[in-house]
Amino acid sequence: MVGEFDLIQRWFSPATDHTILAGGDDAALIAVSPGCELAVSTDMLVAGRHFAEDAPPDAVGHKSLAVNLSDMAAMGALPRWVTLSIALPAADEAWVADFAGGFLALARRHGVDLIGGDTTRGPLDICVQIMGEVPAGQALRRSGARVGDLVWVSGSLGDAALALAHRAGRYVLSPEGLERAAQRLDRPQPRVALGLALRGVATSAIDVSDGLVADLCHIAEASQVAAVLDWPAIPLSAPLQAARGDALVQACALGGGDDYELCFTTAPEAAGRVQALAGALSLPLTRIGCIEAGSGVRVHDAHGAPMRIVRGGFDHFDGH
Amino acid sequence: MVGEFDLIQRWFSPATDHTILAGGDDAALIAVSPGCELAVSTDMLVAGRHFAEDAPPDAVGHKSLAVNLSDMAAMGALPRWVTLSIALPAADEAWVADFAGGFLALARRHGVDLIGGDTTRGPLDICVQIMGEVPAGQALRRSGARVGDLVWVSGSLGDAALALAHRAGRYVLSPEGLERAAQRLDRPQPRVALGLALRGVATSAIDVSDGLVADLCHIAEASQVAAVLDWPAIPLSAPLQAARGDALVQACALGGGDDYELCFTTAPEAAGRVQALAGALSLPLTRIGCIEAGSGVRVHDAHGAPMRIVRGGFDHFDGH
Repeated sequence: MVGEFDLIQRWFSPATDHTILAGGDDAALIAVSPGCELAVSTDMLVAGRHFAEDAPPDAVGHKSLAVNLSDMAAMGALPRWVTLSIALPAADEAWVADFAGGFLALARRHGVDLIGGDTTRGPLDICVQIMGEVPAGQALRRSGARVGDLVWVSGSLGDAALALAHRAGRYVLSPEGLERAAQRLDRPQPRVALGLALRGVATSAIDVSDGLVADLCHIAEASQVAAVLDWPAIPLSAPLQAARGDALVQACALGGGDDYELCFTTAPEAAGRVQALAGALSLPLTRIGCIEAGSGVRVHDAHGAPMRIVRGGFDHFDGH
Repeated sequence: MVGEFDLIQRWFSPATDHTILAGGDDAALIAVSPGCELAVSTDMLVAGRHFAEDAPPDAVGHKSLAVNLSDMAAMGALPRWVTLSIALPAADEAWVADFAGGFLALARRHGVDLIGGDTTRGPLDICVQIMGEVPAGQALRRSGARVGDLVWVSGSLGDAALALAHRAGRYVLSPEGLERAAQRLDRPQPRVALGLALRGVATSAIDVSDGLVADLCHIAEASQVAAVLDWPAIPLSAPLQAARGDALVQACALGGGDDYELCFTTAPEAAGRVQALAGALSLPLTRIGCIEAGSGVRVHDAHGAPMRIVRGGFDHFDGH
């Protein structure tokens, strides 16, 4: 059994690439670049709720940082610094080593410094806080959508939720389909480069963590507008595309969370710039609807008829 | 049963006194004052470990912020922003309301904005991250102690640990003594004003959270020096002073944590300024030892003989 300080020092030696003081003091010290605001976000992940108790620790490490990077992407912020607090049932060195491997590999890929944290004994719980920089006034907010704007989403939706459905025995994916979907669920790729590229282009943005409809509802509410989506336009991965008529596939694409794509709005004139971005980033960016006067989110089917909207966001206290 | 978003909005409406964007988006936005560095610290508190399962929720709210404010104090940073993540076994609205009351009252007293957070269902776990400002280059670090410096501590030591000992049945405090000691344990007062006043005065500082000897060891290690303490000089509260010879009192004062006083070093010439500060802040500041060449921490008794040093810091994985 190793001690707290050993564990931290052995596996989480802070990166100090662009940090004044990291670890080994009562606080870390950072300098925010002149002219930048600091975007700050935090997510707590509980075993058995946000990830399976027996999930591969490196995937848990990856995901606990990825969901926070995704929040930076949704703000158009460049992720720079992160703190990590973990409650662990025991000082399981193998688990910590694997977890750190997944966490730090993703941190390195995005140039994020791990500047501090806390470790304690307790039921497995991970809390990450991330800080990123954005030029003053240029953050992508939820409140900027205007009537007439186009609604876009990156990548494809539904795979992560379908992997969850497969694991719960409510759907059967092919081995290849499962591998792809599980990758989306367990090792999401935050759209950081897209978020940065959308500064000055998007009028609003959010990451799809609770489900497309639920998350777009937040934009509609903050912007005091309505969003109307076109179901046939919603991008699905190839395996899901073949099952577009399936009710569970629809529920996963519209209501499932955990895809960590970006949903954003732009003025109609910006459509060409968005298409150019898609090419530059090698990432599909699909126009899925438009912003109208009113409130809430409606989805129309292939015949233009309103679809019954599946259950909304993931609410951690609604018994879900 | 109320939902996550309801709970957050009802009890934790973010304060926005000096925050650009707080709550209701993917991240909060803050602007760090020109010429300032940002000090960042985080602490995770687990029920049954850092506080009793049945502890008054307002005291838990107070303490979860207080321990983070104490880290800012130890850096000489002005606490400005805080995020709060909570895992709760159930959406217990009465508990959350009381917790928020304790947390927000202390936040208001220190002018700290609650800018965001996360709420989820899980075993009770609280994670707070605090951010404070300090003029560039003026942070109080652990590494600045020099041979010949004086060692000081604020307030008095040992009460919090003795309250814990009383609750565990290992000591009997008088009703008045218990009330005072329990207040220290449950509602510590972070020495924020002292930390700010020590900028340019202290050569190093740390808050006493793991125990005086263990925490001073961190200063000695970071500064590559030794610290020698004079046991008769260690400040005890009046009830403890009467029992200075008691082994448990000694253990609590030297090795008990949770007092959240500041331990700091200064050049000998600064002694007068420290005494003046004590008067200005109405807070005892006691000279308890000096810095020598070497390593580690030694404590001398009234006869100048080395005392056996009681167990050190609170290590969350050593079975304590």
